[in-house]
Amino acid sequence: MEPKGLFEPITITLPDWVAGIVDPEASYADDLARMRLAVALSDANIERATGGPFGAVVFNAETGRVVGVGVNMVVPARNAVLHAEIVAFMTAQQRIDSYTLANGPHELYTSCEPCAMCLGATLWSGVRRVVWAATRDDASRLAFDEGPVFAASHEYLRARGIRLEQGPLRAEARAILERYGTSGGAIYNA
Amino acid sequence: MEPKGLFEPITITLPDWVAGIVDPEASYADDLARMRLAVALSDANIERATGGPFGAVVFNAETGRVVGVGVNMVVPARNAVLHAEIVAFMTAQQRIDSYTLANGPHELYTSCEPCAMCLGATLWSGVRRVVWAATRDDASRLAFDEGPVFAASHEYLRARGIRLEQGPLRAEARAILERYGTSGGAIYNA
Repeated sequence: MEPKGLFEPITITLPDWVAGIVDPEASYADDLARMRLAVALSDANIERATGGPFGAVVFNAETGRVVGVGVNMVVPARNAVLHAEIVAFMTAQQRIDSYTLANGPHELYTSCEPCAMCLGATLWSGVRRVVWAATRDDASRLAFDEGPVFAASHEYLRARGIRLEQGPLRAEARAILERYGTSGGAIYNA
Repeated sequence: MEPKGLFEPITITLPDWVAGIVDPEASYADDLARMRLAVALSDANIERATGGPFGAVVFNAETGRVVGVGVNMVVPARNAVLHAEIVAFMTAQQRIDSYTLANGPHELYTSCEPCAMCLGATLWSGVRRVVWAATRDDASRLAFDEGPVFAASHEYLRARGIRLEQGPLRAEARAILERYGTSGGAIYNA
């Protein structure tokens, strides 16, 4: 196969099944309902074999509506940047037609604590709050490296007004990570 | 204007003029020639008003050929993730058709020291070496926040075999940052 030209556009397309799980018209009521969606995405992503065991959603905290959605697409899209959080930020910014989500009460729910790259992206994204289910330790136990994230990294974001919290469904999200590991899924950052 | 649908693909297209500056057939001989290209991209990006004052290139260190190219596209593309380094990683991975650049002697040259997000992305990208021109301090003086990057962050990458170096053309790259600042360019991470 001829390699793609240097200047060819990059197109990022969510798996088809995502539209069957995310309701663009619904109001997701609370932390639990919102995290349930992020975790359902991580679960479906490994069931459908469309990427790693991670899902993320940007919500408008007041309306409860979905603004952006992401799943891990690193291996199938051949793109190491496409963690679930990154895809959720990109789709949210495209939807609101702005490079910053700071113009509204936007919050990220992610099935797993953000890695160093995604934590940096969080700062630039304009979201006000990040909530995760599985923790850094849960991911590390599966040999997913989280990169250079320190207590001072979280403090850095908090000092800039971003709330970072461990939320509901940790056990469920961790079980999905473990299922991915035991099914021989690629641990591409090992 | 109707907002874009939640599930619409995202397309990332380099500015047209990039193909006039980057020679896909050339062998860029050494650190200086390679950095000259990264800095030329940052310069042209503000001249053409297609983004922030940052350029980056992934090279094959042995052949000297360009594998991926990026400029900052945050404001025009309405996408906070599209720092020059991120775009360079994405185009390089598309070109070699793999999510990792670790299968070859790939190195990133960037006009400015990577921020927290791009440093995390560096770890996942598979490049073996990163060389920058302007430093974190130069960018900070212009009020570009670099995010939670600590000495321990660099140590973390070095411990995993990635070389991180300040390279040639710092004064030239810093002058471009300053020109952008005095011309009233958007400091979107301020």
